[in-house]
Amino acid sequence: MQTQKLKVGIVGGTGYTGVELLRLLCVHPNVTLTVITSRGEAGLAVADMFSSLRGYVDLTFTDPALANLTDCDIVFFATPNGIAMQQTRDLLTKGVRVIDLAADFRIKDIPTWEKWYSMTHACPDLVTTAVYGLPEMNREAIKTAQLVANPGCYPTAVQLGFMPLLEADVVDTGYLIADAKSGVSGAGRKAEVHSLFSEAGDNFKAYGVAGHRHLPEISQGLTYMAKGKVGFTFVPHLTPLIRGIHATLYAKLIKPTDLQALFEARYKDERFVDVLAKGAHPETRSVRGSNICRIAVHQPQGSDTVVVLSVIDNLVKGAAGQAVQNMNIMFDFPENTGLELVPLLP
Amino acid sequence: MQTQKLKVGIVGGTGYTGVELLRLLCVHPNVTLTVITSRGEAGLAVADMFSSLRGYVDLTFTDPALANLTDCDIVFFATPNGIAMQQTRDLLTKGVRVIDLAADFRIKDIPTWEKWYSMTHACPDLVTTAVYGLPEMNREAIKTAQLVANPGCYPTAVQLGFMPLLEADVVDTGYLIADAKSGVSGAGRKAEVHSLFSEAGDNFKAYGVAGHRHLPEISQGLTYMAKGKVGFTFVPHLTPLIRGIHATLYAKLIKPTDLQALFEARYKDERFVDVLAKGAHPETRSVRGSNICRIAVHQPQGSDTVVVLSVIDNLVKGAAGQAVQNMNIMFDFPENTGLELVPLLP
Amino acid sequence: MQTQKLKVGIVGGTGYTGVELLRLLCVHPNVTLTVITSRGEAGLAVADMFSSLRGYVDLTFTDPALANLTDCDIVFFATPNGIAMQQTRDLLTKGVRVIDLAADFRIKDIPTWEKWYSMTHACPDLVTTAVYGLPEMNREAIKTAQLVANPGCYPTAVQLGFMPLLEADVVDTGYLIADAKSGVSGAGRKAEVHSLFSEAGDNFKAYGVAGHRHLPEISQGLTYMAKGKVGFTFVPHLTPLIRGIHATLYAKLIKPTDLQALFEARYKDERFVDVLAKGAHPETRSVRGSNICRIAVHQPQGSDTVVVLSVIDNLVKGAAGQAVQNMNIMFDFPENTGLELVPLLP
Amino acid sequence: MQTQKLKVGIVGGTGYTGVELLRLLCVHPNVTLTVITSRGEAGLAVADMFSSLRGYVDLTFTDPALANLTDCDIVFFATPNGIAMQQTRDLLTKGVRVIDLAADFRIKDIPTWEKWYSMTHACPDLVTTAVYGLPEMNREAIKTAQLVANPGCYPTAVQLGFMPLLEADVVDTGYLIADAKSGVSGAGRKAEVHSLFSEAGDNFKAYGVAGHRHLPEISQGLTYMAKGKVGFTFVPHLTPLIRGIHATLYAKLIKPTDLQALFEARYKDERFVDVLAKGAHPETRSVRGSNICRIAVHQPQGSDTVVVLSVIDNLVKGAAGQAVQNMNIMFDFPENTGLELVPLLP
Repeated sequence: MQTQKLKVGIVGGTGYTGVELLRLLCVHPNVTLTVITSRGEAGLAVADMFSSLRGYVDLTFTDPALANLTDCDIVFFATPNGIAMQQTRDLLTKGVRVIDLAADFRIKDIPTWEKWYSMTHACPDLVTTAVYGLPEMNREAIKTAQLVANPGCYPTAVQLGFMPLLEADVVDTGYLIADAKSGVSGAGRKAEVHSLFSEAGDNFKAYGVAGHRHLPEISQGLTYMAKGKVGFTFVPHLTPLIRGIHATLYAKLIKPTDLQALFEARYKDERFVDVLAKGAHPETRSVRGSNICRIAVHQPQGSDTVVVLSVIDNLVKGAAGQAVQNMNIMFDFPENTGLELVPLLP
Repeated sequence: MQTQKLKVGIVGGTGYTGVELLRLLCVHPNVTLTVITSRGEAGLAVADMFSSLRGYVDLTFTDPALANLTDCDIVFFATPNGIAMQQTRDLLTKGVRVIDLAADFRIKDIPTWEKWYSMTHACPDLVTTAVYGLPEMNREAIKTAQLVANPGCYPTAVQLGFMPLLEADVVDTGYLIADAKSGVSGAGRKAEVHSLFSEAGDNFKAYGVAGHRHLPEISQGLTYMAKGKVGFTFVPHLTPLIRGIHATLYAKLIKPTDLQALFEARYKDERFVDVLAKGAHPETRSVRGSNICRIAVHQPQGSDTVVVLSVIDNLVKGAAGQAVQNMNIMFDFPENTGLELVPLLP
Repeated sequence: MQTQKLKVGIVGGTGYTGVELLRLLCVHPNVTLTVITSRGEAGLAVADMFSSLRGYVDLTFTDPALANLTDCDIVFFATPNGIAMQQTRDLLTKGVRVIDLAADFRIKDIPTWEKWYSMTHACPDLVTTAVYGLPEMNREAIKTAQLVANPGCYPTAVQLGFMPLLEADVVDTGYLIADAKSGVSGAGRKAEVHSLFSEAGDNFKAYGVAGHRHLPEISQGLTYMAKGKVGFTFVPHLTPLIRGIHATLYAKLIKPTDLQALFEARYKDERFVDVLAKGAHPETRSVRGSNICRIAVHQPQGSDTVVVLSVIDNLVKGAAGQAVQNMNIMFDFPENTGLELVPLLP
Repeated sequence: MQTQKLKVGIVGGTGYTGVELLRLLCVHPNVTLTVITSRGEAGLAVADMFSSLRGYVDLTFTDPALANLTDCDIVFFATPNGIAMQQTRDLLTKGVRVIDLAADFRIKDIPTWEKWYSMTHACPDLVTTAVYGLPEMNREAIKTAQLVANPGCYPTAVQLGFMPLLEADVVDTGYLIADAKSGVSGAGRKAEVHSLFSEAGDNFKAYGVAGHRHLPEISQGLTYMAKGKVGFTFVPHLTPLIRGIHATLYAKLIKPTDLQALFEARYKDERFVDVLAKGAHPETRSVRGSNICRIAVHQPQGSDTVVVLSVIDNLVKGAAGQAVQNMNIMFDFPENTGLELVPLLP
C-alpha cells in the first residue's frame, strides 16, 4: 500500500538549488511536484529552461503572486536571502511545513544576522522556533519541525568535519581554521562578471577573507558543539569546478586521541557521512551528484596538528539533497528515500 | 513477484566504460553483480579504486584467469579491442550471452576490420552472428541475440542523427559530413600524454582526419540505412570536457521535406531519443550521466543544407548505458529499467 | 634614433578586447598609451581592475565625455557595436586614424548590416571608405587607410582558411561549410547567464545555427575571393576553453590540386599565417596569446572533400593582435612590431 | 655594443619546465640556445613536438650521450630528480655554470634528502657549495654561484609569503600552516592516470598530507628565516587549472604589527614580488605566464591570526622564470632581462 504522496511546492525554481531540487524530487517516490514559482519566468515550461528535465518535469513556472502554495504539504524556498522570511508565517499558519534553503532562519542571534545580511529581520520569533537542518546534529528536532533552516554549503562541510573533535573536546577550541574551496556553482545562477567562464576558469583565488556570511553560521555551530566560545578563522576560495566543496580543517590536539576511531564511531550510523580509511584523500568528484559527505582525518608528521579533509557536493549535501533529507525526516520516510544517488565519476 | 535476478559479469572493470557499467548496474533492480575482472588490480576492492562506489559495490577485482564467468547469465566486455574475440566463443557455448563494448564484433567485413584494427580476427564466424546493438535500428534482432556488438560512441551519435534522413531518402548520400566533438573520457583511462589535463585542458583540436576507426563503423551503418554506397567524411575533435559528444552533421537536401516532422515521427516511440523543438541547440550537459540522445534539425537560411545536431553522453548512450539498454531488450525487461537517470545539470 | 612614439587612445577599455589591446600596447616599443575611456569605470586605475597590468599600465579610465581623443594619432574602438560609428567622423576630420574592433564598418552593404545588427547605420559614407583590416587580403589598402574595420574573430579564422582555395578557384563555391568552435571569451566580458562558468563549463553546444552576425561578414569576404556568389553554411559552437577558435572547413575539390603546395605558396610571405606540414592537426593552445593563425589542409581518404583546419587566438589574431598588426601597417612599422609573442603552452 | 651572447644548454627539454625554459630563452636578448637534450626524442625538431615554438626554436633534440654541453656557458637541468647530480661535477670542472630545476641540490642535510627522495646522493660535497636560488633571500650568493639549486614551486610561493613575518619575528614559529593549491602542470608532462583530464578535471583534492617532498625544503627555508626550529604543517591540493599556485598561509601574531607596512617594506625593491593593497585577493591568472609573485596579507576579524595569500605561476616564478632570473643575476644582466612578460588575462 502506497501512502498518499506529499504535495510539494518550490518557491524560486530557476536557480541552481531550485533545479537541483527538481532533479531530486521529480523521481522521489513519495512526492508530487505541485507548484514551482518564478517571478521572471512565469508561464515558461520548466523543461524549456532546463532541457535536462525534459520528460521528468511537466510543470510550468507560476507567478508567485498567483501560486497556490497553501495546498502544499511542504514548501521549499530556493530564493535569495530575505524572501522566505516574508512568506513563511502565512504558510506555517496554514499548516504548511517549510524548508528554507537560504539563510533567513539559520542564525539565532538576530543582531548578528542583521549585521551580516544587511537587512532587518521580518520575523525574529520564527527564528527561535526554526530548527537548523543539519541532521547529523539535530535529527530529533527536525522530525517535528514546522520550519527548517537548511544549512549553507560551506557550513555543512566544515561543521561535519569539526563535529567529532569538538564534541569529544580533544582540540584547542581557540584556534580552529577552515580553509575551504568551492566550485563556481556555489555562487548561483546569477549573471555576474566574476562567475563568468573566462573569469573563473583556469583561475584560483581566495575571497571574503575579511568576512564571509557563512562565518557566523559556522561559528554558531562550532560554539554549540564545543559548548563554549571558539576562535575560528574561515578562508573561502573559488576553484574552477562546477560542483564541489573541499574543506581543509586545522586544529591543535590537546589530548592523545585515536582520531580514526573517534570519527568512525561518531558517524557509524550516519548514511550520508562516510569516514574514509586512514591516510585517504577524499576528492570532490567522489560525491558529485550525491548526498554524501566524505571525510578523512590526518595527523601529519606525528605533530599535534589535526588535519580534517571534508568534501561534499555543494548543490546536494550542501543544499538541495540535505533539504530532501530533512523532508524525509520530517515526514518519517526512510532518510535515504530518493537519495541513493551513485556519484558520477568521471 | 520478483523475477530471479540476472547474474552479471564484467570483464575489464577498471576503465571508464567499466566503472560506468558498475554505476548503472549496482542499482539496476534486476541484476546481481557477480564478478568483475581485472588483470592489474586483482584482489583490490572495487570501491577502493573508485570511491564513488563505496556502499554500492562490495566486489573485489578477480584475476581473469580465475574468474568464473560461465555461471553468469550475461557478460559485458569493457576491455581493449581484441580481448572479447578471444573469450566469447567459450561463453556462448556455455549459454552465457555476451555484450562487447569494444569493437571486436562491430564491423561485418573482416578485411576492413583487420585493416583498421591491425589484428587478425580470431572468430570471423561470430561476427556474422553478432547483432549490432543500436536498438533504434536493430531492436528485434537484439531481443534474441546471444552476442551483441555495442556501438562506438561517435557512431551512436552520428547514426542516430543521419538515420531519419537516409531512411527517408531525402538527402544526397554522396556527400555526408560528420563534424564530431568528443570529451576526453572518450580516450579512456589510459595514461597517455595527450589526455593529460595540461594537454587537453583549455585546448581544442581535430585528430584522426586522415582516418579514424569509427569511420568504417559509421559508413557501414549509413550504407545500411541508405541501402547503397555513401560518400562520408568524418572529422573528430577533442574538446575540453569530460563527458559528452556533439555531432554536427551536414547533408544536402534533394527533395522538399518537413524535416522536423520527419525526425519527430521517426523517434516518437523511442524512449532514448529526444527530438527537440525547431530551432533548438542541444547541449552536451543536457544529457550528462543519462542515456538520452537529444537531436535538433536545422535548415539554415532556407538553403538546401541540412544541419543535424546530435548529443549524447559518450559513456552512457555511447557505451555503458546503451549496453544496459541492450541487456534489457535481450532479457525482456522494460527497456528503460535502471536507465531513468535524470541528467546532472549544472 | 628613436622615432617619436605614437599617441594611442582606446575607447572602451574594460572588455576583453580592451584589456588585450592594453596587454599588447603597453610593451609596444613605438606606442605611448595616452587615454583609455570607460563610461562605467571612470576614475578607476586600469591596474586596479586588471591586476595583470600592475606595473605596466598606470593610466586611469577616463569618462568618454571628457576624454581628449583628438590629440591621439590613432584611436582603437573596443566598444559594443554601434558606438564607433557615432564618433569616428569627428576623429577622422581631426586627422586621427581609427581602427574599429567592433562591426560598424565591416559590411559594405548597408541594408545587410542594418538587418543583422538591428540598427540604422549612422554614417554609410564612411563604410565606403573604410578598409577591411585583414592584412593577408588587403595589406596595400590598409597602409593608407584612415579608417580600418578590424575583422571579427570567426571571419578571420574562416577566411584565412578558405582564401587559397577560392583565389585558386579549385573548389565548388556553391557548397562551402564552416564548422567553427570558439572559446568563451569570444562572448566578451558581459555578465550573461549563458557565459557563466557553471553553464559554459564542461559543456559543448552549437548556437546561432539559424544565423550568426559573422555569416554576412564571412560571405562578403568569400564572395570577394571567389569573384562571385558563394553558397556558405556557418555553424558556430561554444567550447569550454577561454581563448581560441578552431574552424573546420569543408569544400568540394573540382580540379586536381596539390593542396599543400597551394597553401604554402599562398602564405609563404605571411608572418602571421603558419601552414603546418601535411597531415598535421593544429591545436588552439599552439597559438594561445599569439597573433599566429595556424592552418593544415587535408583530403581525407583520397576523396574530393577538402578539409581545412584553421586556429587562432580569438582575442589576438581574432581581435586586438590583428588591430595592432593593422596599426603597424598603417604607420609603416615592421608588421610584427610588438607582436612576437611566443604562445603560452601548456 | 652588444655583449657576446651566452651559450645555453638545456638537459631534458621535453617536460613542462623544459618547454617553458625554451619559451623564455628563445626571445631572451643575451642568450643563444645551443643544445637541448632528450633521451627519448633525439633527432626530433623541438618545434615538431611543441608547435607553439615554430619560428622561434630551430634546434633538434640531441641524445644526451652525444651532446656537447661543455661548450656552453650555462646548463639548465630540467630533468627528473637524480639526474643532475650525476652530471654536474663534470660540467663545473670545465667551467660551465649549472642551474638545476630539480631537487638534487636543494636540501643541505643529506640524510633528509636521501629519506625524502629515496636515493643515495651522488655528490654531497656539491650540495654544500650549491646556492639555493631564491633571489629574494640569497641574491648576493647567487651572483657568484657556480651551481644554483632552483627552488621548487610550492617552496617559492610559501617562503615568499612567510619571509617578512619570520624575518621580523612577529609570529609564533611553532605553528605555521601552509594550505597550498597547485594547477596540474605541477605534476609534469608524465603520462600518469591521476593527471588525466578526466581525473583531474572538475575535481579538487588534497594529496600527500602525510608528507610531501616540498615539506623539508620549505622547513629548511623557514628555519633559516626564523633563525630557529619551526613547527610547520603543509597540505598540498590539486586544483583543475593548468598553471598557478595559490598558497594560503596561517600564523599566529605574537606582537602588534602593521603587517601591510611590513610586507611593503620587505619587498619594495623586488621586481618580482608585488604586494597588493590591503584587503586584496590575488588570483592565479593575474600572474599567468609571468615571473611575478603577488602577495596580500590579512588579519581577519581583528584576531591574532595572520592570513597570507601568495600566488605564482608554478612554471615561471615556480620553475623556469626563476631559473632565468637566477641566470641573469649570475651573469650580471639586469635581473628582469627577458622576464618582462605581461600576464595573459583572461
